[in-house]
Amino acid sequence: MRIAILAHEKFPDRAKTALGVLRYGDYDVAAVLDRAAAGDRVGDHVGDVQDAPIVEGMADLEPDAVDALLIGIAPIGGGFDESWRDDVRTALERGCDVIAGLHYFLEEDEEFAELAAENGCELWDVRNPPADLTVSQGLAKEVDAEVVLTVGTDCSVGKMTTTMELVRDAREAGYDAAAIPTGQTGIMIEGWGNPIDRVVSDFTAGAVEEMILEKGDEHDYLFVEGQGSIVHPAYSAVTCGILHGSMPDRLVLCHEAGKEVIHGYESFSLPSLERYVDLYEGLAEPVNEARVVAGALNTRTVDDEEAAREAVEAYESELGVPATDVIRFDTDGVLEAILE
Amino acid sequence: MRIAILAHEKFPDRAKTALGVLRYGDYDVAAVLDRAAAGDRVGDHVGDVQDAPIVEGMADLEPDAVDALLIGIAPIGGGFDESWRDDVRTALERGCDVIAGLHYFLEEDEEFAELAAENGCELWDVRNPPADLTVSQGLAKEVDAEVVLTVGTDCSVGKMTTTMELVRDAREAGYDAAAIPTGQTGIMIEGWGNPIDRVVSDFTAGAVEEMILEKGDEHDYLFVEGQGSIVHPAYSAVTCGILHGSMPDRLVLCHEAGKEVIHGYESFSLPSLERYVDLYEGLAEPVNEARVVAGALNTRTVDDEEAAREAVEAYESELGVPATDVIRFDTDGVLEAILE
Repeated sequence: MRIAILAHEKFPDRAKTALGVLRYGDYDVAAVLDRAAAGDRVGDHVGDVQDAPIVEGMADLEPDAVDALLIGIAPIGGGFDESWRDDVRTALERGCDVIAGLHYFLEEDEEFAELAAENGCELWDVRNPPADLTVSQGLAKEVDAEVVLTVGTDCSVGKMTTTMELVRDAREAGYDAAAIPTGQTGIMIEGWGNPIDRVVSDFTAGAVEEMILEKGDEHDYLFVEGQGSIVHPAYSAVTCGILHGSMPDRLVLCHEAGKEVIHGYESFSLPSLERYVDLYEGLAEPVNEARVVAGALNTRTVDDEEAAREAVEAYESELGVPATDVIRFDTDGVLEAILE
Repeated sequence: MRIAILAHEKFPDRAKTALGVLRYGDYDVAAVLDRAAAGDRVGDHVGDVQDAPIVEGMADLEPDAVDALLIGIAPIGGGFDESWRDDVRTALERGCDVIAGLHYFLEEDEEFAELAAENGCELWDVRNPPADLTVSQGLAKEVDAEVVLTVGTDCSVGKMTTTMELVRDAREAGYDAAAIPTGQTGIMIEGWGNPIDRVVSDFTAGAVEEMILEKGDEHDYLFVEGQGSIVHPAYSAVTCGILHGSMPDRLVLCHEAGKEVIHGYESFSLPSLERYVDLYEGLAEPVNEARVVAGALNTRTVDDEEAAREAVEAYESELGVPATDVIRFDTDGVLEAILE
């Protein structure tokens, strides 16, 4: 599937979804739309992903250049930025589907809904959960696959990235592994999944369980994309529901080097790593026993390579299990601990 | 407000909401509708609540006998039982409001919506959350009130009842206490509140916080109605969101005597009481430190009074804090520990 990724004025540093799709998605990316960087190429900004031209807007592409437009950024609050309307309109007029992970649903936008109907296009709001989700039955532990869940010390420390890197590397090493996507970027990358943070609260665990039951007998390993943190003042409910709904066997603790307080909630300090391990394992145990078997440290704020390696070693030593930075270093030791 | 409570074929043992409203609600209950017990009185079945006649249906009441009909039962799945339609229709034709806590929203029923509009009645689906809820800001700990949260070892062990009994007894002892209702029965009793299990998962903590911020500077004590259990395979997300959203100072651990497995999920054993205390306190601490200061043991399955007292004493001794059965015995020692 050929796509264009909309990332106006935010590529690459504030375009987490765009980068995730470029890095892990099974799409042929024909262009990135960013009016602030038009004329550059993706490769001028990011080294380790597929290259593509950056253009001003949909109108700069050949009429049949892409099959879909994917919204690869989200403003604070998740609204639709009216400066994107021309691009979405052009895409629909050309018969392209539009994929978005906003809180604002494109299919509820009158103009877009009409254009999509007229031109036979699909509007896929990945953050709009399926209507048939329900409460967990408590069955996830019965699937054949080993279930591995990424858990974190905060939001945005690399759970999605770690999940995707581990799945890719496990597959390359010959294992039958699949990702269970739980958030908008993961869902866009994989092309399916339930947006756990948007389901009815009572169905949080059930919406994860449904995916585990669907895929759990088809693969040897499922890597579940975790969300939030178990001590996050706002998002811990989602984290807890994913932990009990997926009933993992193994946990990978994701953290960002140097992080001391919760992002956006700076009056809340992170507890010790030991406390995180105790909380995640202690909370899992009565439902399904799980151990933290590996760590993933995000060292993006550490410029020096040697300092980054030392930070990973310190993290590894504090956790007592193999750790790595999945982007900066290899995942061999971590994968060995997870897959053994 | 004069109400009739619909509880067909389930009063009193399978009519938890009807009983809760009879016991704690500030309503004048003119009748209970139960076609299987018509002719009896409430007092023939339950001793400690306001008495009222039990009748076949709305048609047996004088046309102006009540201001509202309250649906006091819920079938498995939360649907609307068509055998209730005549009663709801009659109520609306007489100008009565209808209050329901079903998953099926009365306001989305075409006939009921039309009748309500024609007759100027309100349809209040208490399980339909307000549209303006959002994520938690992490501010609940800043209110003036001491916040007390009931937490449990499972669903249906008495968290709502404990909350309401403690609020009533605290008020009678001269304290300025209020309940924060989080479930349909609590909301019906109090006449306001957010149905936490029905909000968007990401807003779980925020929907509790919103209530704490609204009431937290108006009272000296807030008693928050807890939900589920932190190790429930299906509902722990809601429990966790309430714990972090309300940021309690004190916890009351609710349990049912003799309970060993999770209701409806019998392959899951309850962990030890000590483990529950560790999990609730450990999970609260990084967000806002809270201690289990009292226990509430539901001894409904223990017939013998002396055995019930012994069960409470054993519970108290295992927890190391004062405990009681809030229905069977007094709450003096427990309240002293909570309010000191």
